[in-house]
Amino acid sequence: MTLEEKAAQLGSRWLGKDKGATGPAGPEPETDHAVAPMEHEFSGGPALEDASRHGLGQLTRIYGSYPITVSEGTAELVRQQRIVMASSRLGIPAVVHEECLTGFTMHGATVYPSAIAWGATFDPELIERMATAIGRDMAALGVHQALAPVLDVVRDYRWGRVEESIGEDPYLVGAVGAAYVRGLQSAGVIATLKHFAGYSASRGARNHGPVPMGRRELLDVILPPFEAAVREGGAGSVMNSYADVDGVPAGADPWLLTELLRDEWGFTGTVVSDYWSVPFLASMHGMAADSGGAGARALAAGIDVELPDTIGYGAELVGRVRAGEVAESLVDRAARRVLTQKAELGLLDPEWTPEASVAGADEVLLDSPANRALAAEIAERSIVLLDPGSALPLAGTGRIAVVGPCADDARTFLGCYAFPNHVLPRYPGVKPEIELPTAVEALRAELPGAEIGYAPGCAVDGADRSGIPAAVAAAAGADVCLAFVGDLAGLFGNGTSGEGCDAADLRLPGVQAELLDALLATGTPVVVVVVSGRPYALGEVAGRAAALVQAFMPGEEGGPALAGVLSGRVQPGGRLPVQIPRDPGGQPGTYLQPRLGAVHTGTSNLDPTPLFAFGHGRSYTTFTVGDLRIPQTRVPTDGEFTATVRVRNTGDRAGSEVVQLYLSDPVAEVTRPVIQLVGFRRVELDAGAAADVTFRVHTDRTAFTGRDLRRFVEPGELRILAGTSAADLPCEAVVELTGPARPAGSGRVLSTPVEVRRADS
Amino acid sequence: MTLEEKAAQLGSRWLGKDKGATGPAGPEPETDHAVAPMEHEFSGGPALEDASRHGLGQLTRIYGSYPITVSEGTAELVRQQRIVMASSRLGIPAVVHEECLTGFTMHGATVYPSAIAWGATFDPELIERMATAIGRDMAALGVHQALAPVLDVVRDYRWGRVEESIGEDPYLVGAVGAAYVRGLQSAGVIATLKHFAGYSASRGARNHGPVPMGRRELLDVILPPFEAAVREGGAGSVMNSYADVDGVPAGADPWLLTELLRDEWGFTGTVVSDYWSVPFLASMHGMAADSGGAGARALAAGIDVELPDTIGYGAELVGRVRAGEVAESLVDRAARRVLTQKAELGLLDPEWTPEASVAGADEVLLDSPANRALAAEIAERSIVLLDPGSALPLAGTGRIAVVGPCADDARTFLGCYAFPNHVLPRYPGVKPEIELPTAVEALRAELPGAEIGYAPGCAVDGADRSGIPAAVAAAAGADVCLAFVGDLAGLFGNGTSGEGCDAADLRLPGVQAELLDALLATGTPVVVVVVSGRPYALGEVAGRAAALVQAFMPGEEGGPALAGVLSGRVQPGGRLPVQIPRDPGGQPGTYLQPRLGAVHTGTSNLDPTPLFAFGHGRSYTTFTVGDLRIPQTRVPTDGEFTATVRVRNTGDRAGSEVVQLYLSDPVAEVTRPVIQLVGFRRVELDAGAAADVTFRVHTDRTAFTGRDLRRFVEPGELRILAGTSAADLPCEAVVELTGPARPAGSGRVLSTPVEVRRADS
Repeated sequence: MTLEEKAAQLGSRWLGKDKGATGPAGPEPETDHAVAPMEHEFSGGPALEDASRHGLGQLTRIYGSYPITVSEGTAELVRQQRIVMASSRLGIPAVVHEECLTGFTMHGATVYPSAIAWGATFDPELIERMATAIGRDMAALGVHQALAPVLDVVRDYRWGRVEESIGEDPYLVGAVGAAYVRGLQSAGVIATLKHFAGYSASRGARNHGPVPMGRRELLDVILPPFEAAVREGGAGSVMNSYADVDGVPAGADPWLLTELLRDEWGFTGTVVSDYWSVPFLASMHGMAADSGGAGARALAAGIDVELPDTIGYGAELVGRVRAGEVAESLVDRAARRVLTQKAELGLLDPEWTPEASVAGADEVLLDSPANRALAAEIAERSIVLLDPGSALPLAGTGRIAVVGPCADDARTFLGCYAFPNHVLPRYPGVKPEIELPTAVEALRAELPGAEIGYAPGCAVDGADRSGIPAAVAAAAGADVCLAFVGDLAGLFGNGTSGEGCDAADLRLPGVQAELLDALLATGTPVVVVVVSGRPYALGEVAGRAAALVQAFMPGEEGGPALAGVLSGRVQPGGRLPVQIPRDPGGQPGTYLQPRLGAVHTGTSNLDPTPLFAFGHGRSYTTFTVGDLRIPQTRVPTDGEFTATVRVRNTGDRAGSEVVQLYLSDPVAEVTRPVIQLVGFRRVELDAGAAADVTFRVHTDRTAFTGRDLRRFVEPGELRILAGTSAADLPCEAVVELTGPARPAGSGRVLSTPVEVRRADS
Repeated sequence: MTLEEKAAQLGSRWLGKDKGATGPAGPEPETDHAVAPMEHEFSGGPALEDASRHGLGQLTRIYGSYPITVSEGTAELVRQQRIVMASSRLGIPAVVHEECLTGFTMHGATVYPSAIAWGATFDPELIERMATAIGRDMAALGVHQALAPVLDVVRDYRWGRVEESIGEDPYLVGAVGAAYVRGLQSAGVIATLKHFAGYSASRGARNHGPVPMGRRELLDVILPPFEAAVREGGAGSVMNSYADVDGVPAGADPWLLTELLRDEWGFTGTVVSDYWSVPFLASMHGMAADSGGAGARALAAGIDVELPDTIGYGAELVGRVRAGEVAESLVDRAARRVLTQKAELGLLDPEWTPEASVAGADEVLLDSPANRALAAEIAERSIVLLDPGSALPLAGTGRIAVVGPCADDARTFLGCYAFPNHVLPRYPGVKPEIELPTAVEALRAELPGAEIGYAPGCAVDGADRSGIPAAVAAAAGADVCLAFVGDLAGLFGNGTSGEGCDAADLRLPGVQAELLDALLATGTPVVVVVVSGRPYALGEVAGRAAALVQAFMPGEEGGPALAGVLSGRVQPGGRLPVQIPRDPGGQPGTYLQPRLGAVHTGTSNLDPTPLFAFGHGRSYTTFTVGDLRIPQTRVPTDGEFTATVRVRNTGDRAGSEVVQLYLSDPVAEVTRPVIQLVGFRRVELDAGAAADVTFRVHTDRTAFTGRDLRRFVEPGELRILAGTSAADLPCEAVVELTGPARPAGSGRVLSTPVEVRRADS
């Protein structure tokens, strides 16, 4: 291959409707809704024929950029692949990538719950099934690579992309994330781990903002989910984070993208750039004087493929190689990775044709009944009953006032990467091609014996209070009020949650807190249902509401799932993957902190204690966790131990509990979290039934990053705690690690296997 | 010396009234006001005779712990020193240390403006004079060491100790801090740099909270003021920070306390522990199982003296040395430093006596007229006229409504380490023994021709709105309303600013924002005067107020200074050492940030642009800065260049402008601040007069910490900008650094000399 041909494999092309793609008849898109950061600065670009003159690495979002049908999309894919193959000497087809953060981001495709809801399921197997279903639909449409999952560990609830993240605990994120990767890739679609790494901890929670973080926090909190998804999930691709960590942008960091990811973890796939993050190295980070210089830095650091268009790579790289400024071996290194992956995908097979790659597409129902059932199952399992209070489950009769901006707009159930929120705001006339029952509709179906009235009260955002009196009147005249408040996801300021929609604090957006105040003042019992992408501070509401429910953007089946939880038909299964704070200020701060970050010690007037703890969630039965047994409490630093607890359903209804195992390290070489999740398992139990849950904890799972910035297992005492949330840990025991301190290298054990055995009562 | 005797030199004893000190007759202190973190957990302790059986390193706060007169204090000092000398074989007296963050923390001593006001003067020479005066008074009372200055660079405006800090720019903090050190030490009192290091950037702004920070930010932002105060100020002591930085508590960090501080910077003085931070290494940080173990870690890291009492040192250390767990050489190392300092102080001279050490005390006027004049000068120079608007200077006649909780309570002018706020809340019956004119009193004296009414409106904190109607009525009936809002400093939750009084967000405390809203609604022009320890978000007020003034806790002469600024008698001189934010959320974030932290790029909906920029401040005349001249624009990486600008008073009144020089590094190896202050000089000019201000910038001043975590000078283009604030930089030029990248080692140039020459018009 010529230098030009090799470099071409590192590039990509995104044809929007305005850039030569063939789309449906209809209005031109409104351009005040960007789907990618600063998208409008990068409009235009060459025709696909020109972009592919020496070949092309990837084709960007053929299905996901504007509303098209399956047949239109497959035709466009075939057309673009044909151009790519015909325009160059070698005729190598492109990798086709798409987004799928809440399901395939395509018109009419199933919108599953958001990632933060996956975390709330505490159920990796369920998420693996979802990812398998997503991958199957995408693969059938000729898509090779999906830009998911997001493995950023939540560090600041104000950040807009909390909804796209799985939670604030690295083990939970890694377990669910690796399951997602396995599912997606089992269907033949390459998963892309993002955003590598540190993105979620930007200063002031501003999207793309600089990340103040030391190497130890990066190694102990941010990176473990990525390592799990690489080593245990076998992920095929990784995408860099936009942000800089302590001054070094991820996209220009050879330590991160090469030394750690490849040399230490053994990653062999491709590293792709987040959209335009290559030119951003110049324009946003000052790493280079221009895009070509940025490309040189990105390539050297370890970015193999530039997305979504070739700007800093391509001709810029070729010129720099010819000028002796960039080593051709770096181009070779990246091209080899790309071509290896294309070979694995069959794209280099002589018999491969674009038509064959979409041969199964006509069979695909993008929102099949099976998909919807799966979406419903995840929604039901992710809705967190914070407090059933006195009002839940609902009686099912009498007058019910349904109020709030999330009650009758199912878009509030969808994440920012769901097509209806991601793309359709550009196309005001186009309706989602999926059923999106609202909460009001679902409640009317759920409770035919009740008299259900509805008044919105206010919008999700904005200062308009004019609807509050009508909502108050509705509540005052009802036996119970259901208040649905929360977020409407959007992009870059066009929502209250989502990419580029960061919050200044954790007050409910707009005038929703005032609406709740007014409703609570009526004296009618108010069930507060928060449908949001991030946790909001509920300290003002707790103790006044008749019940509290947290739904993390539950997807297209969110309405029926919510109605089922409220009626009691559905046993709510969610556990909090993020804390619910008491107060709207004082961010950032998650549960995973050393004593001075997690405990109210009296040294500051600000109390970090949350309103509801990480891992918390109630249901319509009750459980006890007890009888902790650790047969071996002296364990060599290279050994393992088991911890068994008995969980019992002490209520009168079947349900499931998430048994959680935490570790506490009272004396260590560096400050350690007060407690840290080390294992979990959801257990389904009939009323009265019990089970023994055994966690097998390798000492590698106790490792942390010491003073010399290497992970090691430290001898000494550990406290082992078990229970149902970070604040409910009735079981405690001590394990002593004996022997010498031991380095925990790249082969270390990353997970905690769990066994469940039915126990006699 | 025996091991016990050496170890004893590393200890200290604090005798409160409840611990055997002789105090004045009067009520016992109320114990719900702590003056140190978790003080009550450490009450009790041995009699001084027992504590001094082998000698004693330091005596803690003899003057500053409860209200006593000079003669009572000197008698107590003599008594305690006599006990120390008589109780041990060698009879070595103790170092006596006290607090002096806003002047000597003693009953009746001058309360100067807070440190954040020192920063606002942009006048190191003036602060040096203040420190000299403070040191003179303390030295005359036999005090050897002062626990000041605070050199923490402000990173989060919510942090309670912003008022004790000099500002958010490391160069400003270092210049003012080194001047303070020189002044204090010129009087014979050892300065103590605190808090070393990283304290100000705790997560969520909670006091003592963990600090998420990488090594680069630590080296480039946090440490430079300490280095300047050590290398250019010659500081004799350093105090560790309570907090951990990326998992490593400063008090247990040998890299920080020994390798960097001593081996690289050449520090030869003593490192003292912040109060109880040695046992905190065990109880708060989990670095050890008990206080003795914590002592061993602290000693090994480089803490020489434990304050305020011997808990982890003393017998604990001796026992560990005897058991072979701690090297005696570590005790020797610390004891040698302590004894060297005692020798330098003359404490080892045979003729030294406690009586002689306080021989001059009777002459001392703790709040002399000269002190008060100096306090007034600093106050006047520190008050920032944010916007004279249409209302300032005041007409001086007509009806003036003075409103707000800071208008008639001069304690709101004082920092949390001022004796009236620090200690007197424990003694409800005891009045400050200094004149504390309030704003109302000062305004009545200042404007005899005006009719001045007063209504408080509300308290600084709390939810009581009952006074707002009367304040509104007063404003409505007046020609102009002066609204004094802000903070009342206190400790550990007993104030709205100060140690342990952190803010959840940047809304004015209590109902003060509502008070302002109500006043602004009257239609009467409202001059908003914020008297605070931290910047508050004024976006809601700007554009509605008739003028805006920011006073950073201006001290005992704050009332007359404020009255003078409002009347126009005083030419306001302050410049912002911290930004004034527009919005109350979105913290943290200061001006010193790379592009994605400082500029509204569209990638987030949150806009970091402040309402008033760092360095901003108006006066009752106008200035222009222009005509930037840089004779040599190609400079070798080991060279220097000069930048000269002309500043002109273009108004009709004498005044002073702070000419500011900033540097911008558009392309670098790591992300760099958009701009960074590199030099400044206050210039006094008569109306119409001009001056040329020449900054001599060594290339060392452009150095930063590269990828390998070493400081170096990078070749390439730099933008040089000059003007009157970070947002008003009309002068710009490019300098190119040529030649190889050059390490900037420990001998590098830390300051930018400035020359001022009168210019012809």
